[in-house]
Amino acid sequence: MICDFDSDKPREECGVFGVFGHPDAAILTALGLHALQHRGEESCGITTFTGRFHHERHLGLVGDNFTGPDLAERLPGSMAIGHNRYSTQGKTALRNIQPIYGDMDFGGFAIAHNGNLTNARLVRRELTERGALFQSTMDTEVFIHLVAQSKEKPRLVNRLIHAMQQVEGGYALVAMSGKKLIGARDPIGLRPLMLGKLGDAWVLASETCAIDSVGATFVREVENGEMIVISEEGVESFRAFPEQKERPCIFEYVYFSRPDSKLNGHSVYDVRRRMGWELARETFLDRDLEADVVVPVPDSGVPAAIGFAEASGLPFQLGIIRNHYVGRTFILPTQDGRKLSVSKKHAPNRPVLDGKRVVLVDDSIVRGNTSEKIVEMVKRAGAREVHFRSASPPIKFPDFYGIDMPDQDELISATTSHDDIAASLKVDSLGFLSVDGLYRAICGQSREESSKLYADHCFTGDYPTRLTDHERKESAKERQLSFLEDH
Amino acid sequence: MICDFDSDKPREECGVFGVFGHPDAAILTALGLHALQHRGEESCGITTFTGRFHHERHLGLVGDNFTGPDLAERLPGSMAIGHNRYSTQGKTALRNIQPIYGDMDFGGFAIAHNGNLTNARLVRRELTERGALFQSTMDTEVFIHLVAQSKEKPRLVNRLIHAMQQVEGGYALVAMSGKKLIGARDPIGLRPLMLGKLGDAWVLASETCAIDSVGATFVREVENGEMIVISEEGVESFRAFPEQKERPCIFEYVYFSRPDSKLNGHSVYDVRRRMGWELARETFLDRDLEADVVVPVPDSGVPAAIGFAEASGLPFQLGIIRNHYVGRTFILPTQDGRKLSVSKKHAPNRPVLDGKRVVLVDDSIVRGNTSEKIVEMVKRAGAREVHFRSASPPIKFPDFYGIDMPDQDELISATTSHDDIAASLKVDSLGFLSVDGLYRAICGQSREESSKLYADHCFTGDYPTRLTDHERKESAKERQLSFLEDH
Amino acid sequence: MICDFDSDKPREECGVFGVFGHPDAAILTALGLHALQHRGEESCGITTFTGRFHHERHLGLVGDNFTGPDLAERLPGSMAIGHNRYSTQGKTALRNIQPIYGDMDFGGFAIAHNGNLTNARLVRRELTERGALFQSTMDTEVFIHLVAQSKEKPRLVNRLIHAMQQVEGGYALVAMSGKKLIGARDPIGLRPLMLGKLGDAWVLASETCAIDSVGATFVREVENGEMIVISEEGVESFRAFPEQKERPCIFEYVYFSRPDSKLNGHSVYDVRRRMGWELARETFLDRDLEADVVVPVPDSGVPAAIGFAEASGLPFQLGIIRNHYVGRTFILPTQDGRKLSVSKKHAPNRPVLDGKRVVLVDDSIVRGNTSEKIVEMVKRAGAREVHFRSASPPIKFPDFYGIDMPDQDELISATTSHDDIAASLKVDSLGFLSVDGLYRAICGQSREESSKLYADHCFTGDYPTRLTDHERKESAKERQLSFLEDH
Amino acid sequence: MICDFDSDKPREECGVFGVFGHPDAAILTALGLHALQHRGEESCGITTFTGRFHHERHLGLVGDNFTGPDLAERLPGSMAIGHNRYSTQGKTALRNIQPIYGDMDFGGFAIAHNGNLTNARLVRRELTERGALFQSTMDTEVFIHLVAQSKEKPRLVNRLIHAMQQVEGGYALVAMSGKKLIGARDPIGLRPLMLGKLGDAWVLASETCAIDSVGATFVREVENGEMIVISEEGVESFRAFPEQKERPCIFEYVYFSRPDSKLNGHSVYDVRRRMGWELARETFLDRDLEADVVVPVPDSGVPAAIGFAEASGLPFQLGIIRNHYVGRTFILPTQDGRKLSVSKKHAPNRPVLDGKRVVLVDDSIVRGNTSEKIVEMVKRAGAREVHFRSASPPIKFPDFYGIDMPDQDELISATTSHDDIAASLKVDSLGFLSVDGLYRAICGQSREESSKLYADHCFTGDYPTRLTDHERKESAKERQLSFLEDH
Repeated sequence: MICDFDSDKPREECGVFGVFGHPDAAILTALGLHALQHRGEESCGITTFTGRFHHERHLGLVGDNFTGPDLAERLPGSMAIGHNRYSTQGKTALRNIQPIYGDMDFGGFAIAHNGNLTNARLVRRELTERGALFQSTMDTEVFIHLVAQSKEKPRLVNRLIHAMQQVEGGYALVAMSGKKLIGARDPIGLRPLMLGKLGDAWVLASETCAIDSVGATFVREVENGEMIVISEEGVESFRAFPEQKERPCIFEYVYFSRPDSKLNGHSVYDVRRRMGWELARETFLDRDLEADVVVPVPDSGVPAAIGFAEASGLPFQLGIIRNHYVGRTFILPTQDGRKLSVSKKHAPNRPVLDGKRVVLVDDSIVRGNTSEKIVEMVKRAGAREVHFRSASPPIKFPDFYGIDMPDQDELISATTSHDDIAASLKVDSLGFLSVDGLYRAICGQSREESSKLYADHCFTGDYPTRLTDHERKESAKERQLSFLEDH
Repeated sequence: MICDFDSDKPREECGVFGVFGHPDAAILTALGLHALQHRGEESCGITTFTGRFHHERHLGLVGDNFTGPDLAERLPGSMAIGHNRYSTQGKTALRNIQPIYGDMDFGGFAIAHNGNLTNARLVRRELTERGALFQSTMDTEVFIHLVAQSKEKPRLVNRLIHAMQQVEGGYALVAMSGKKLIGARDPIGLRPLMLGKLGDAWVLASETCAIDSVGATFVREVENGEMIVISEEGVESFRAFPEQKERPCIFEYVYFSRPDSKLNGHSVYDVRRRMGWELARETFLDRDLEADVVVPVPDSGVPAAIGFAEASGLPFQLGIIRNHYVGRTFILPTQDGRKLSVSKKHAPNRPVLDGKRVVLVDDSIVRGNTSEKIVEMVKRAGAREVHFRSASPPIKFPDFYGIDMPDQDELISATTSHDDIAASLKVDSLGFLSVDGLYRAICGQSREESSKLYADHCFTGDYPTRLTDHERKESAKERQLSFLEDH
Repeated sequence: MICDFDSDKPREECGVFGVFGHPDAAILTALGLHALQHRGEESCGITTFTGRFHHERHLGLVGDNFTGPDLAERLPGSMAIGHNRYSTQGKTALRNIQPIYGDMDFGGFAIAHNGNLTNARLVRRELTERGALFQSTMDTEVFIHLVAQSKEKPRLVNRLIHAMQQVEGGYALVAMSGKKLIGARDPIGLRPLMLGKLGDAWVLASETCAIDSVGATFVREVENGEMIVISEEGVESFRAFPEQKERPCIFEYVYFSRPDSKLNGHSVYDVRRRMGWELARETFLDRDLEADVVVPVPDSGVPAAIGFAEASGLPFQLGIIRNHYVGRTFILPTQDGRKLSVSKKHAPNRPVLDGKRVVLVDDSIVRGNTSEKIVEMVKRAGAREVHFRSASPPIKFPDFYGIDMPDQDELISATTSHDDIAASLKVDSLGFLSVDGLYRAICGQSREESSKLYADHCFTGDYPTRLTDHERKESAKERQLSFLEDH
Repeated sequence: MICDFDSDKPREECGVFGVFGHPDAAILTALGLHALQHRGEESCGITTFTGRFHHERHLGLVGDNFTGPDLAERLPGSMAIGHNRYSTQGKTALRNIQPIYGDMDFGGFAIAHNGNLTNARLVRRELTERGALFQSTMDTEVFIHLVAQSKEKPRLVNRLIHAMQQVEGGYALVAMSGKKLIGARDPIGLRPLMLGKLGDAWVLASETCAIDSVGATFVREVENGEMIVISEEGVESFRAFPEQKERPCIFEYVYFSRPDSKLNGHSVYDVRRRMGWELARETFLDRDLEADVVVPVPDSGVPAAIGFAEASGLPFQLGIIRNHYVGRTFILPTQDGRKLSVSKKHAPNRPVLDGKRVVLVDDSIVRGNTSEKIVEMVKRAGAREVHFRSASPPIKFPDFYGIDMPDQDELISATTSHDDIAASLKVDSLGFLSVDGLYRAICGQSREESSKLYADHCFTGDYPTRLTDHERKESAKERQLSFLEDH
């Protein structure tokens, strides 16, 4: 099988979007989800309300599904929530596409979320024992059952707060009843959620780029542990938890967020460019690196490579060309069973590389096999030396808050020494940005100076929440998903 | 729009099938559902179990979906239940296809049913108030939530009995856990369910024709109010209710069941042929009818027409040809908006009709417009006289137990006198089989003699159960289905 | 694999339909093709004209494809031709669906035909040598290239006559240019073609049932060797050949045509009923057959069984029920590789058969394996004796004019003696209608008396035309179809 | 409707690829076509040969269609040709997907081409008059009919040369018989075609990037007017025309070719970077431009922007982010009919633009409306000044050789003065690269110095061939495409 060089990048689970009070709610949501497509490419869904709920869920991209002259007819209403999903477990069943919906005693309720609950399995077991029937295998559904079974009647707000208090983990959620649009974040704000305004209408989105994409104005971030309720009465803010320090996920800066988004006041593009600066600073602090050209691994390595070039004075050139036409499954076994060692996503730009000493800048090294193949490709194109620089620190620990990442024993930095990684990549030198360098690129302070401002567990092992499901022993019966659906 | 002459026939909601203890459980279920296809053409589903549950649900016919060399791989296991559905409310969403499934505290549980609950809306409201989240708009789902929330733990059998005791109406259900295949009928046995045996394996089916179709041997009918539980320990029988008189739906004889099925020991074909005898007897008792030929409205009128011909001595001929190639929606508006008065389902066989005095035999008259068009067609083909005979009594009352029938004000016999019906059909004479004649064709006794052995409410208005939902005033919110799904 | 009892029936290749001068030409054509669906179920196509040609071709049934409120928009115009196809060679490629179309020097030209040319391969080779590029593997395309390359300019009529003179075999074709609708039959009229009138409009159809189905009036049959040209100037008749005796295919009466069609003034239903009479006459002439009931193999055996019952005085009963819900490919291999000996198309109606001496009437016996299985099924249902009667003579010779029939060595009557067939079918007696009996049922005269009025080669080996391709030795290259298309 | 900012870019018609002598011919062709996907995104096709021809054609991308573990089974053989197509006329019908195929007297023949014939309509009319039946509306089909009808028998090579001599225009074609793989270019080499070697196998491709993508080694360009024939005997070269000067299309450098391709020894990436140098040189020659940042319109403007930044000393930054997730048709009409002035393809990166004097570099300006919207977006993001620079000269004339470009009256540079364009774009300054600057970036010489080495008609109006169809008056009948196909 031909290898996909990008296959080991960490993947974000989801993007969310919501609109309140705009006649084109579904259209805005489609545009917003399109701007968030990088957060999840496998499925998408939109729910709207006009006296009754309207609901469409699809496998595939937003731009292939939420389109057409009849979109506003199919999904009418001035309130909407939407969701992009990247699924980790093989085939995404239709029933696992968000938003999910429930008919409750008070009326319909729909919810979509980005993130992962670290006690979802335990809560699910308890709910099932109380007679709850789960429609899906998504942890999102835990919320909807907790709301349905909550004794905190009659107010939906209280019931949702009650639900939030029973779960652990990282999440940003958008939800809607027939009257309210709701946005909420976990107690330490692991996953992002933004509030914007478009005329009299309100929007919620995972990133500011989606707020920009519909022509709305960024108002503020939803705070950690905050629940925002938007209705005809305006915007109300509730606190589901005692005050806690925010610890947003540092990976949003490194990889997930789009470069034109802003997080906590920081331009993601600028942060990444500064990661390049810091990387260059640490590189040349270390030793005198002689090189001819700085080449990014596109697209995600480009801003850091620009920053590295700026700080080092070396020229920035596109030494690797990315092919953006990539089908879903490009499986091509050859007649004799050999692997064709050929990339379908990256191609070397030989004139830039041939005979050159190349600084190759990528955003991260995960399993290492992608990096190894890119180095091999660059060398085959004639590079005299390859100096690999990772714009993030070594990834040594798995994530439990919604990032799809390999198991720890597949993380090369968790298992292999720096020198052995350099040897296996066959590079002339190898460097990672330090954790402090990453912090400085973001907020101008070291990790300690900033009081560990971010959730940096993938680099440090310092998990900011309990990991209940992970630590608990499950019975075989629990672990088994008993339901299988084909189409 | 071109008229579909068969459009006003009453339609059955469903057929069910189940297998325990056969290595080809899914294949047998596919064959059984194929034999029950006439009970529901819109969707079909099969669930099997091999340590985990396997599940496929499709829009369309069994023979188009449950086929292919990989069927046994897709649906492995020695236990299976399956379902055919005819949906009454427009488009059938995938989520409304049975069997439906739930992950319970004791493991997975799947259920499929034929029939209709007369208090489903009330029970659903109560369940929703207790926090149950419904996945579908089917009343079948009421069962699964009642089982999930039942306090009658730990035995599944007790929980299902408890569920049955909370619902009213007519139903035949098949269900399965990882260990048991279950079949059950409502307290008065409105909907049929048969038990058969194939070697060491057991089968359950709505009709004996499905038991025959898999080469199994008919054992007995599941009794009214009985629950049969099949497991490794064998077949156990439970009673969910105090003993009551059985009142099976008389329409199974008139229309639903396949002619090669047996119900309560009676061959359906023979019953229908005897309906023709009784109809002839009542016709000639009444007056001296002179005619040249007996012509059935195919296919459902054929056995009664054969019987009529036998009893009357008139020749039986195929004066109407049925086209079996009928697509899903054959909508053909003409350029100038006229209706082409042309049938796509029936065609006159002119040489049989031209110049003849025709006795036209159909199984029933519902709205009357189909009969009117068939009469018109027969006359246009040259028939000198048309004497219409319905092999069932006038249909005056709606059904609430799973038959899809027009509202009462659309039932021509509910609103129109015998003479006015004859005039509107433009026939030379019109006759319906009497209720006593129908009883005699089935069991050889009049209605009174048999102590009202059958549920004959469509002819008599004598409903055998409470009609809770029908009688109760619902709030607007309840009546509204808040959820809509598109694909 | 489960056996399909009907699998060895001969199949007709095609049905054709055409309209001139009606604003709803496409709708009428869809209705007409629907009425002709029995002549070909695998694909269908319609071509219309409004200054330019409009064209739709589909796999599947007419009623599933040529429907919808936009049909008249998709296929506008007052002239149309259409086609149903049954394909003999595995998968029907889209490019092998008729009508086929060509841009000619004089404008567009579309053609559809029913039948088979017996020198198509030779003509095709010659055309290819002259530079013609064939789009399909259908012999219909030979016509269009012969027209395109004809020197008989400028008149289309002359060019089409010229084309007809170069081919041999049996065909009925409909064709259209931007101005003319054309219908034509082969020199001896092997395949049928009917002319009808609907107001000022004209229709052409393979059978009268299709003319009836659109509310048109039958005018006359297109004669053998005649070409009818319909234009604004009215209907013109041309003769492509010197006068010859007509010899229409006798199988239209036996099997292909719908019972409500008329051929050469004979009602097909009446002919088949008389085939039953003749069969009874020959049966009882032969010996004294004692039996209790006459049972048809549905649907095609029904009229002959009715006739047999009438002539013999035995009761006619539906002892076999046909399931009309048959999916395209119902393949169900079992776990252990056994064949389940179960039919999905026919089911025995036990009360009619049990303990009875049954006369089983079918239209024909081809390979014999279907008949064998039906007999076995009838016996398993309790029949005491089975007396098999075929309403057609023994089929001993293959057809070359468009009927899809097994090779000669698979025709049981070609290879096996009468007694051995009876033994292999395990019947108590076996009888075939004689050739003279068949002639008498049709025209009241024996074969000789009628001067061999029909093409009866399947029974007699008396082929009415040359069989050029069959007799010619082809090179390996010619026989190989070099082109394969997947979708 | 929401505007697609990229909608007015010129589009290439096609990419071609061929393989001879490799067991994985179809897999290599799929990889090669994937690398050429930018040359045509609407459809793709591959033909292979193993005694018979195998053929698959699809709408959509290579990576979505030519994939799967069974690809080698579906398209076996060691010889293959393939094609990507961008269709200019609305919906691409399946019959308009290349390769196209014909059964000839000598066997099968398949062909695919990139380019456009300038006398295709005339030749087609002549062929049709000689009886040729065209399957498609593609000018490629002209070749296959010319070969089929050629008197230059028996050699295929002679027949194809004869065909090439009868057509005019620009083309690069790959073709195959059962024994030969053929590549050919038009007399002046307007469209590119490259020869490569992979072990003992040969490959042909529109660009070197496709040769690289399969791991093959670039050998040389097929020359203008050359026909290369690859068979078991090796590679032969033929000349179809008297020697002529080559004039390859200059737009391959400006826009079409992938940056990692080489043309005539020039790296396309380097040429584009040098276009940025020349553009900077001409800009600062002209006047003293003060600016803060160089921002490319991605992706096509990036290399020139890098070059401009290098030559000017201004920093290069990603001020515009491109969203690569773009569905086929993203049509979103709003409730009140307004146009949402929002891009779905480009997003401004505000921190790079806000308060800055921006040099915006794009590859070209065609209609002007895309550029206008990008400038507006950049200004809304806070840019203080916008200086627009086009890396190609003003486009004033349409192309007739396979580039899909607007009509002349829609080309803004053909109708509008430099100052008026600047005003309509609302930029602070506007500059185009000169024709001589473009030549210098490619070959280091001015247009005159190089003796007009390239086909530069879009900038100069100097068409290198006759434009027969364009100049000829066509009858209404000719212009009308009489055939329409729906699915």
